[in-house]
Amino acid sequence: DAKTGTSYHIAVVPGDGIGREIVPQAQAALQKAAGGQADFIFDDFDLGAERYLRDGSILPDDELDRLKGEDAILLGAIGDPRVKAGVLERGLLLRMRFELDQYVNLRPTRLYEGVSSPLADPGRIDFVVVREGTEGLYAGAGGSIRRGTPQEVATEVSINTAYGAERVIRYAFRLAMSRRRRLTLVHKKNVLTNAGDMWQRLVDKVGEEYPQVEREYLHIDACTIFLVTDPGRFDVIVTDNLFGDILTDEAGAVVGGVGYSASGCINADGTYPSMFEPIHGSAPDIAGRGVANPTAAILSAGMLLRNLGLEEAAGRIDRAVEEDIRELGSTRRGTDQVGRDILDRI
Amino acid sequence: DAKTGTSYHIAVVPGDGIGREIVPQAQAALQKAAGGQADFIFDDFDLGAERYLRDGSILPDDELDRLKGEDAILLGAIGDPRVKAGVLERGLLLRMRFELDQYVNLRPTRLYEGVSSPLADPGRIDFVVVREGTEGLYAGAGGSIRRGTPQEVATEVSINTAYGAERVIRYAFRLAMSRRRRLTLVHKKNVLTNAGDMWQRLVDKVGEEYPQVEREYLHIDACTIFLVTDPGRFDVIVTDNLFGDILTDEAGAVVGGVGYSASGCINADGTYPSMFEPIHGSAPDIAGRGVANPTAAILSAGMLLRNLGLEEAAGRIDRAVEEDIRELGSTRRGTDQVGRDILDRI
Ligand SMILES: CC(C)[C@H](C(=O)O)[C@@H](O)C(=O)O
Ligand SMILES: CC(C)[C@H](C(=O)O)[C@@H](O)C(=O)O
Repeated sequence: DAKTGTSYHIAVVPGDGIGREIVPQAQAALQKAAGGQADFIFDDFDLGAERYLRDGSILPDDELDRLKGEDAILLGAIGDPRVKAGVLERGLLLRMRFELDQYVNLRPTRLYEGVSSPLADPGRIDFVVVREGTEGLYAGAGGSIRRGTPQEVATEVSINTAYGAERVIRYAFRLAMSRRRRLTLVHKKNVLTNAGDMWQRLVDKVGEEYPQVEREYLHIDACTIFLVTDPGRFDVIVTDNLFGDILTDEAGAVVGGVGYSASGCINADGTYPSMFEPIHGSAPDIAGRGVANPTAAILSAGMLLRNLGLEEAAGRIDRAVEEDIRELGSTRRGTDQVGRDILDRI
Repeated sequence: DAKTGTSYHIAVVPGDGIGREIVPQAQAALQKAAGGQADFIFDDFDLGAERYLRDGSILPDDELDRLKGEDAILLGAIGDPRVKAGVLERGLLLRMRFELDQYVNLRPTRLYEGVSSPLADPGRIDFVVVREGTEGLYAGAGGSIRRGTPQEVATEVSINTAYGAERVIRYAFRLAMSRRRRLTLVHKKNVLTNAGDMWQRLVDKVGEEYPQVEREYLHIDACTIFLVTDPGRFDVIVTDNLFGDILTDEAGAVVGGVGYSASGCINADGTYPSMFEPIHGSAPDIAGRGVANPTAAILSAGMLLRNLGLEEAAGRIDRAVEEDIRELGSTRRGTDQVGRDILDRI
C-alpha cells in the first residue's frame, strides 16, 4: 500500500508548455519540505500535447486507472496552440477532474508582501474561492445541429445537482469557520433562475448549521466589480464551475498575476487522489525559455502536502515562498533561480 | 407617424430604485441637447417593482405592443429586493430585450479625464463591448426536477444560433472599421466547444470581409485579467450575452465605476425600437436619497440621440458630460446638481 509508513506515490503530469519547466521545481520543493517526515515516489505520466500529437492518445483508460491508485497528482499545465481548443482541456484536464470526482476546486488568493498589485490601493487581500469542479457548464452536455450552415444551432447545457452543490457548499462553510467566517455565494440568480435558486436555497439550508458564518450573495457581474474596488471584503467565495473559473483569473490579476496562484482540485471524500496545479496556463509564448515563474507550482506542491496531512511540511513551503517574494519578488530571475532560492529557504 | 417632422415618441421606463431619480435628468438632457432640431413626446410606462407589487403585472402584452410603436426607449433600472430575483429581470427587462429583438447590447467603456480609476496605472482606456443580447444563457431555457429534494437537478441551457451570432459579429466588425480596427472575440471555446467553435468560425468568416480589422481571440478568464492589467489593448470586444454582462461590469469598475457607463440595447434592423439604459442597477441601498449619479443615464440619452440619427445633439451631450467630469468629477454632488451642471453645459 502506497500509504504504508511515510511513502507516498505522487503522479506527475507536467503537461504542456511551461508546465514542463515548473513541475520539476515543485517536485524538488515537495521532497525537501517533507524532509525525513515523508518520502515521495514520483510516477511520471506522459500526457498532454506532445503525446497526443505523437500517438493520438489523450487519456487512455488504463492510465486513468493508474492515476486512481496514486496518493496525489501534481499537474503543470494543459493546452497547446497546435491542438484544437478543447481537445486536451476536455479530454485530459476536465476528464481527470470529473472522473476523479474532484468536486472542490480550491483557489486561495492572497496579495503577498513584495508583490505589486495593479490596483492603486489594494489593501489586504486574502480570500479563497471554492469553485465547484464537477458539473455546471463544464459537464460537456450540449451539441450542435446544421453545423457550418446559416441555420446552425449550438447549445451548451449547465447541469447542476443538489448533491453536487451541497457538498461543495458544506466544504466552503467548514473552511469559512477556520477563517474569518464570512461566506459569499456568487451566481447569477436573476437570470439563471433554476440553478441560481437551487444554490441559494442550499447555501441558506447549510448556513443554518453555521450560524457563526456571515453570508452574503453577489451576482457574478457585481462580484467582478468588488474584486477590483474592494477585494479585501472577501473571505470565502463559493460558486459554480464557470463563475469560479472567471473570478479566480481576475483575482489572480488583482494580486499581481496568476504566477502566484496555486490551486487544488480536491476529492474531499478521499475516494480518488486530489490534483494540484497552478491556475495559470501553459503559456506557449514563453515556453522553453527558462523564464516561467515556478512559484505557483511550488505553492501547489504546498497545497498537496497539506492535503496529505503533512501540515508542517506545507507550512515550510508557504513560509519559504512568502520570504522569497518579500525579499526577491521584484528581482528578474529565471525559473531555476527562483526554484533554487525558494528551495534554500525551505 | 411618430417620425413625421422632428417629433419622436420616446417611451420612458424609470423602473426601480434610483432609476426613478436619474431618468428625469436624462429626459431633460435629451430635450435640451436636441434643441430646435427635434422634439420629444415622452410616453411614461409604469413598469417595475411598484407596479408588480400593486397589481401583479410585469409587462402586459398590450403595453409591450405600445412599446413596439415608440421610436426609442429610455430605461432607468430594474430590480427590487422585495421581489424575488429573476421575476422582473426575466419578465420585464429581458422580455423587452428579447421581444424587441435588441440583439446588439452596446457598451462603450471609457476612462474619462477627471475620473480616478482603481488601477494604479490605467493608461488610456477606450473600447466598446458588443454583447449579444437575445440568446445564449439568457434564453430562459432550462428547468429543474425534484425541486427541494436531495435529488434536485437544475439545468440552464445556452442556445446559440449562427443567425444570432453572425449579425452581432457583423455589427462589431463595422464598428471596428469606424474605430481602431481591432476586434477581440471573447468566449470559452476550450470548454464550451459547441458554441465557442461556432462563434470562432463566424468571426473568421466575417473577418475575411474586413481584412483591415486585426482579430484576436481571448478566453473569458484571460480577458478578465487583461481588463485589469492592460485595458488599453482593447478596441472592440464581441462576445456572448453572459460573458458580455460580466466583462462590462468589470470594465465599468476599471474606468472608475459603473456610474459612468451607458448602454444601448439596439435593434440594428430598426424593426422595433432600441432601448437605452445605464449599465448600473437600481441600487436600492441609496435609492430615494437624491445622491445617485445620473451621468450614465444622461450618456444613455446621448446614445439614444445618436441612434435616432441626431448626431449633433448626441455630440453635445457627450461633450457636456466630458467637461463636467473633467472639471467637477471629483466633487461630491447630488443627483439634481449633477443633472443641472451637465444641462448648463449642453
Ligand atoms: C484550461 C481550462 C479548461 C481550465 C478551466 O476552465 O477550468 C483553466 O482555465 C482553469 O481555470 O483551470
Ligand atoms: C439585471 C440583469 C438581468 C442585467 C443582465 O444581466 O443583463 C444587468 O446585469 C445588465 O447587465 O444589464
